[in-house]
Amino acid sequence: MFTGAAKYKRKPWRLALVALGVVAAGPLLAADELTWRELDPENTVFMELENQLVVIELNPVFAPATVKQFKRLVQERFYQGLSFYRVIDGFVAQGGDGSDLGELSNVPLIDAEFEIDWNNELPFMPVQSPDMFAPETGLSNGFAVARDKSKNMAWLTHCPGVLAMARNDDPDSSRTDFYIVIGQAPRYLDRNMNIFGRVVYGMDVVQGINRGPVLNNGIIDNETGRTRISKLRMLNDIPEDDRLFTYVINTHNEAFEDLIKDRRNRKQKFFHNKPPAVLDVCQVPVAGRITK
Amino acid sequence: MFTGAAKYKRKPWRLALVALGVVAAGPLLAADELTWRELDPENTVFMELENQLVVIELNPVFAPATVKQFKRLVQERFYQGLSFYRVIDGFVAQGGDGSDLGELSNVPLIDAEFEIDWNNELPFMPVQSPDMFAPETGLSNGFAVARDKSKNMAWLTHCPGVLAMARNDDPDSSRTDFYIVIGQAPRYLDRNMNIFGRVVYGMDVVQGINRGPVLNNGIIDNETGRTRISKLRMLNDIPEDDRLFTYVINTHNEAFEDLIKDRRNRKQKFFHNKPPAVLDVCQVPVAGRITK
Repeated sequence: MFTGAAKYKRKPWRLALVALGVVAAGPLLAADELTWRELDPENTVFMELENQLVVIELNPVFAPATVKQFKRLVQERFYQGLSFYRVIDGFVAQGGDGSDLGELSNVPLIDAEFEIDWNNELPFMPVQSPDMFAPETGLSNGFAVARDKSKNMAWLTHCPGVLAMARNDDPDSSRTDFYIVIGQAPRYLDRNMNIFGRVVYGMDVVQGINRGPVLNNGIIDNETGRTRISKLRMLNDIPEDDRLFTYVINTHNEAFEDLIKDRRNRKQKFFHNKPPAVLDVCQVPVAGRITK
Repeated sequence: MFTGAAKYKRKPWRLALVALGVVAAGPLLAADELTWRELDPENTVFMELENQLVVIELNPVFAPATVKQFKRLVQERFYQGLSFYRVIDGFVAQGGDGSDLGELSNVPLIDAEFEIDWNNELPFMPVQSPDMFAPETGLSNGFAVARDKSKNMAWLTHCPGVLAMARNDDPDSSRTDFYIVIGQAPRYLDRNMNIFGRVVYGMDVVQGINRGPVLNNGIIDNETGRTRISKLRMLNDIPEDDRLFTYVINTHNEAFEDLIKDRRNRKQKFFHNKPPAVLDVCQVPVAGRITK
């Protein structure tokens, strides 16, 4: 992984895997068997930040009311032209506050959707048990999830790339304002926010969002210094001929299970000191890709 | 924290604290008592990436030989003009490979400096015990540290902003090539790399480093697409009149201890579900600042 460039001239699918964090110096287990799941256009958002594409997958299973409202706002072009006005490097990029436009009063509040009853029909690929913040973590259709079986409860966890609704002290006060996690997972916010989606493509573009000054709590007072949402559309509202096919890695098959095992139990010669057999659920990237 | 901008009009030092991740909706314990430590110019690096400033603190206590070689390379202007040629979003920005210039043969290899014997004279502010990857984590002069008292051993941990030397399979094969962590902490690399510094100022600039394509393992083949190190100097080599004073938050006093306690035990009304009383050592930002 940390060797010279020449070592990386492998075939594309292996390269993709290396990029997912598997150490190059060693066998890439299951690299060629990983499969891709096509995203449902009804729950896929294409966001353009100054004409650079970011693809977001919404999660109506964990946050049905939030997803419903967000979709409505996207379809009404509510967010178009709005900016990320509070951006703290290493923490969150927050945007979508329409209050200056006088539109807020028409938009209802959203009730808390902090956790769901666990349902055995949901796919769950175990990652870590116990995790520092939850009895158990795993992946459910690519989303990082925590679970507490004793309470029959599951929730989406705050990992980099996650989208959630901002709110004030009232748990039922989400409305339009949302944030994207751009730094080390703030897991202490789990079960306190309506997480409703995640960036599956273009996280590098999200990382390019203009930061605000630390001494101003990330607030960018100068409007021209803010990164704007130039376009935001549901994939199924894009004419079929113009749509891009969008895929994420399928987290529910043997190949992915092997990948998880390989990451938990690093056998490569590179590891002079073998790491503990644990996995941070936020450090298991589940990549997306787009094709014409 | 996730409320409207108006709430953040506080005095500057409180604002700084909010930006460190303390939830705005609630008391900012110890906010006004935090103190700053001035960096030693002998271990402070000023790096300019396309004329934007990044400040790095070196850690000769944990990696004396690596720091010595890095300082020598900085003073010889080895890195000046070199680029970040392998940049994987969410993982690392890697640069400083001088092999194309034919200079590499003159530069010695560095032995592994993966851990040190614990020394009770070193400051240690406890953060988490047990941590998922180590018996204990804490901060030592602002650096995230893990410790295993049973083995009388301590090491710097891979958090965002950390600098470490790249190597091949041989643990003693570090030379010039280094990386900066730009994503979720890859803690599995702990005790396997020569970590020798951390970014204390300008992490937003580091996050602006051009990413490489995922399918090419982050390698940017097109030289013009790479972010270059336009300048890299030791602070003590800058004429005194031109120097900027550089400070980081002092992690070894009661005020900081209170901050840690507050983050571990979130009492703010905002937390509808109280988070577990745990702290991720990589999610405790220790900010730096510069002044004329």
